[in-house]
Amino acid sequence: MGTIDLADLAARVKAGERRALARAITLVESARADHREEATALAAELADETHQALRIGLSGTPGVGKSTFIEAFGLFLVEQGLKVAVLAVDPSSARSGGSILGDKTRMERLSRHPLAFIRPSPARSHLGGVARRTREAVALCEAAGFDVVLIETVGVGQSETMVAGMVDLFLLLLAPAGGDELQGVKRGIMEIADIILINKADGPLKDVAMRTCADYAGALRLLRKRPQDPEGFPKAMMVSAVEGTGLEVAWEEMQTLAKWRREHGIWDQTRAEQAKHWFEEEVRQGILAQLTENKPLAARMARMGEEVAEGKRSPGDAASEILDALSGS
Amino acid sequence: MGTIDLADLAARVKAGERRALARAITLVESARADHREEATALAAELADETHQALRIGLSGTPGVGKSTFIEAFGLFLVEQGLKVAVLAVDPSSARSGGSILGDKTRMERLSRHPLAFIRPSPARSHLGGVARRTREAVALCEAAGFDVVLIETVGVGQSETMVAGMVDLFLLLLAPAGGDELQGVKRGIMEIADIILINKADGPLKDVAMRTCADYAGALRLLRKRPQDPEGFPKAMMVSAVEGTGLEVAWEEMQTLAKWRREHGIWDQTRAEQAKHWFEEEVRQGILAQLTENKPLAARMARMGEEVAEGKRSPGDAASEILDALSGS
Repeated sequence: MGTIDLADLAARVKAGERRALARAITLVESARADHREEATALAAELADETHQALRIGLSGTPGVGKSTFIEAFGLFLVEQGLKVAVLAVDPSSARSGGSILGDKTRMERLSRHPLAFIRPSPARSHLGGVARRTREAVALCEAAGFDVVLIETVGVGQSETMVAGMVDLFLLLLAPAGGDELQGVKRGIMEIADIILINKADGPLKDVAMRTCADYAGALRLLRKRPQDPEGFPKAMMVSAVEGTGLEVAWEEMQTLAKWRREHGIWDQTRAEQAKHWFEEEVRQGILAQLTENKPLAARMARMGEEVAEGKRSPGDAASEILDALSGS
Repeated sequence: MGTIDLADLAARVKAGERRALARAITLVESARADHREEATALAAELADETHQALRIGLSGTPGVGKSTFIEAFGLFLVEQGLKVAVLAVDPSSARSGGSILGDKTRMERLSRHPLAFIRPSPARSHLGGVARRTREAVALCEAAGFDVVLIETVGVGQSETMVAGMVDLFLLLLAPAGGDELQGVKRGIMEIADIILINKADGPLKDVAMRTCADYAGALRLLRKRPQDPEGFPKAMMVSAVEGTGLEVAWEEMQTLAKWRREHGIWDQTRAEQAKHWFEEEVRQGILAQLTENKPLAARMARMGEEVAEGKRSPGDAASEILDALSGS
């Protein structure tokens, strides 16, 4: 990356330059120690930026039409003059070491729009790393003046919880399906979703979509009202990403929810709690990272691990020795 | 607990005294620093014990008749002269601060048998703590000469994975149910189960149990053969805890599986990998524990957490300061 003029980069990010934003995100994605320091310094340069985007999390299993929805919803927003950033979180692609190819090709029209910014998943990282990178990328997009930051995650357990911990509202995208499938949606995700969108409410699937929507609306009414919701939320709605129907109503509902949360102090409170959580999480991740990054320590761990595997020492005894050495160093 | 003569306690555990075993487990369950040290010293005293029990994990959602099964299966084993220990793992009860009351009353006949030892879940602990306590309790039961150690866990995500990481074989207990329910069983648990037992194969449910068993047998055949399994495993079988039927065949299958794994080096290899895993996990838990146990550090974390929540500092910046202080101390 060469030597970086961080003050200049920060100024260009604040001016909303997309190339500067892309470069800054590459910096926060890097695992290199000097890049980490620069990323922290960059964050400090941008700390006085108070612009807040509406941060939206979006989850849905493969096949529900997530890319088509983001393309349609993103275009709907930019056509109203709003600046939209899309970040993808995919620990499974991270695990296999490849980024989601085609994020931009799948959202071709949106990616070419001057008010839009699309960032595919980074390669190679663990969930903790993905969390930090995504959180910092969101902050960069806010500093760059984006109005909406959409964080897309695939439907696999922990990544939703992680994304829910860094957004203002959370959307769950579902395909039309029979009543039996209702049980298939994990309970946890129902509890973090603010708005459930039944996609593909078009053509031959429209009737199924209506029934599915009614099923979910019924299920949501059975949940206890959450303190962060006005009357009627969480709610289930129908959209068609292909036909573009339902997007305007969905956006109105998101704004209603966001406005209510702002007015009731929930927006600020949630962001404060999220920031505190990420601080604590970052300390935990940083401490654990020592175990692999501190080479002599990592070598000692590996050696003792072998002794434990061979039955020469008990796990507890070996762990005590490492922990004593760490606290004594 | 007073001052403990650890050599004496170790000798009495080795002699199989149930009161000594109970006292030793209370010691490993304690969170007090001096008790932790004594527990480690006790483990060292027992390190030369090479007796291995068959460690069996058992999972099943509430209502499948887990207690009734353990009572029936445990009695079947003790009647053959085998010494049986039952340990319960329940992070949810741990979270609410209460132990599973009635573990012993639910297994009244087994708990009174001289060859059986039943230990309810301890109160108040996090999953990491539960893991360490359970692992150490298993080692104590082995040192005390038990032939079978049954570790019961409720059907909630992480606890199964944890228990699967400390046993030689894993049973999944299910109730008879329609085909739709098959989807309800989490994929992860199907992958760690060695034997699936369809309980309540008696009375009016017998026909449903047969169909359920056939459904699971079919589903298991679709899974790729795992290197740790002989031909035909994992398998699905029917039992009736109430009538006591199927227990003998199930026990034969468990022994067949254990024997095959011993003869193919898988038993030793698995135990070695498990020990190494627990060593690493214990180091990680120990390092993270500093954040709450080191009072000045915990106070500083709390103070900085407030500053982050108030927006005075960024999460990353605050975390860096803590991490720098830790690595410099």
